[in-house]
Amino acid sequence: MVKTILLNNRPEGKPSVSNFEFITEDADLTISEGEILLEAAYVSVDPYLRGRMSAAKSYVPPFELNKPVHSGVVAKVIESKNEKFNEGDYVSGMLNWSTQQVSNGEGLNKVDGSKAPLSTYLGILGMTGLTAYLGLNQIGKPVAGETIVVSGAAGAVGSVVGQIAKILGLTVIGIAGTDEKIDMLKTKFGFDAGINYNTSTDIASDIKKAAPNGVDIYFDNVGGPISDAVLFNINQFARIIICGAISVYNNTETPKSVSVQPFLVKKSALMQGFIVSNYADKFPEAMKQLSGWLADEKLTYTETIVNGFENIPSAFIDLFDGKNKGKMIVKI
Amino acid sequence: MVKTILLNNRPEGKPSVSNFEFITEDADLTISEGEILLEAAYVSVDPYLRGRMSAAKSYVPPFELNKPVHSGVVAKVIESKNEKFNEGDYVSGMLNWSTQQVSNGEGLNKVDGSKAPLSTYLGILGMTGLTAYLGLNQIGKPVAGETIVVSGAAGAVGSVVGQIAKILGLTVIGIAGTDEKIDMLKTKFGFDAGINYNTSTDIASDIKKAAPNGVDIYFDNVGGPISDAVLFNINQFARIIICGAISVYNNTETPKSVSVQPFLVKKSALMQGFIVSNYADKFPEAMKQLSGWLADEKLTYTETIVNGFENIPSAFIDLFDGKNKGKMIVKI
Repeated sequence: MVKTILLNNRPEGKPSVSNFEFITEDADLTISEGEILLEAAYVSVDPYLRGRMSAAKSYVPPFELNKPVHSGVVAKVIESKNEKFNEGDYVSGMLNWSTQQVSNGEGLNKVDGSKAPLSTYLGILGMTGLTAYLGLNQIGKPVAGETIVVSGAAGAVGSVVGQIAKILGLTVIGIAGTDEKIDMLKTKFGFDAGINYNTSTDIASDIKKAAPNGVDIYFDNVGGPISDAVLFNINQFARIIICGAISVYNNTETPKSVSVQPFLVKKSALMQGFIVSNYADKFPEAMKQLSGWLADEKLTYTETIVNGFENIPSAFIDLFDGKNKGKMIVKI
Repeated sequence: MVKTILLNNRPEGKPSVSNFEFITEDADLTISEGEILLEAAYVSVDPYLRGRMSAAKSYVPPFELNKPVHSGVVAKVIESKNEKFNEGDYVSGMLNWSTQQVSNGEGLNKVDGSKAPLSTYLGILGMTGLTAYLGLNQIGKPVAGETIVVSGAAGAVGSVVGQIAKILGLTVIGIAGTDEKIDMLKTKFGFDAGINYNTSTDIASDIKKAAPNGVDIYFDNVGGPISDAVLFNINQFARIIICGAISVYNNTETPKSVSVQPFLVKKSALMQGFIVSNYADKFPEAMKQLSGWLADEKLTYTETIVNGFENIPSAFIDLFDGKNKGKMIVKI
């Protein structure tokens, strides 16, 4: 029996479980020569998936209606007619939200659960870690002694960005939405300061207090008013890394913000959007560095693990209420 | 008799002549060893000066109240006690809005009126040309076959950007505020298409028609709603060069625009502000290229020349109503 989650209709505003449809196929899946049969172990839910649920063209085509949703998945090979994979192997890659599926193995990487927990290949040793490392380094070009602000700091990417920035010798200020998260940033991830955007009465002024020398790098996961507030504190030649804009993904009208152009001119500042695959040629170098830091315990991570295939849609939706700490993962 | 223009009070919103004060000194100016006495010949008025008239800190300190305003000036050496300059030489540099002034020669460059009209050293062979050339090349990294949109296209910088982009093999679309300007862009400067933002009912859609393959580079002189409209048309890996934001310089409240962050993420696009002095090390190379193109008649230019020292403030103010075509210069 194979269960699969389809995109039933496109979300208007915040997604709801009614946007998804569960189907069950009674027949067993069979594989041909060159194929493998996979059983999902861990499924990654990520804010960027919201973009693919809209009809609007983006860097990747939108999900098709009445077709399976897909995202990063760690799966077990339960049958193989492909010489590259053996039964019992675990693989990571972009796969359907299905309990079982057939693959030709293309785009899948073997992962080793004895070296690091399997779920980390969706997080700190997966797209999350690569996004943090490559966005920060390729666009941010951090220099020891500089000050960085990270929004969505308690999220999967943000918490890694802050730790890498600390390793590189920066002063790190995180913005997150609960005191518990702020506490975690400081005690678990070593951030120098944290600002709770839900209780701050003036985020711009709180950033100024935390960053008296101004902000050299801003790693932006959220957009919206939090990012507006950072603008008022940027230094000459600041680099603003636009990784995501979760605060506006569910807007049904084109969102408006403080005009960035006058700030960018005044400060000769740079703002650049990216997706991790832009830097695919840097993945091996980044993975080596991340694995090394993780093994040396210079990096740590937090996961919010939700149990059960049927909870994938609600785990995804919870991202928009900030219910995750660190990487949100569904264990099948 | 020496006339000088002081900043009397800081503009709120659009500048007015009452922000300036004219003073007249009856005494002759005298020079010491190492100094030169200068008589202003041409004075440049530029949108960026608006920023310096505000109290807010920017890339350069604000003008001081009750002190002379200064900008790019071409002046004649009428007396010299500095061995680097002879009586009769013309120099270009940042100088006061004064009919005569004393200088130690620092930061001044000799200019040759026999090679090109003296006024061009404030325009296409001065800061204007350098700004266009270096902004376009250093940030825009243009590639033949790409499409560029230029706002403020009939202005001093915009008209040069468009011509350079044509020389480099791009498709060039200009945005300006009158049909006469649009006509000039196409007939005089060789732009491929022009959009009149005052008569267009849907700038975003008009850009789409003019740039069916999307916009790879946007050279932004204006900010505001025109720049919002361009965002909807940018391509993957677009480069947005923020040179100025004249449309919002006179705002008394922080201006709001369409949020750029979601566009930059979706398109892995870059947005970078600059001032020309960031690239001072590239000035010689840029000047050589610009002079060569000008001599070869590959580049042309338009000036709006206003006569009379007393008209400097009104010429400056007219910039914000788009009354200039090309470089706005006051002939003393």
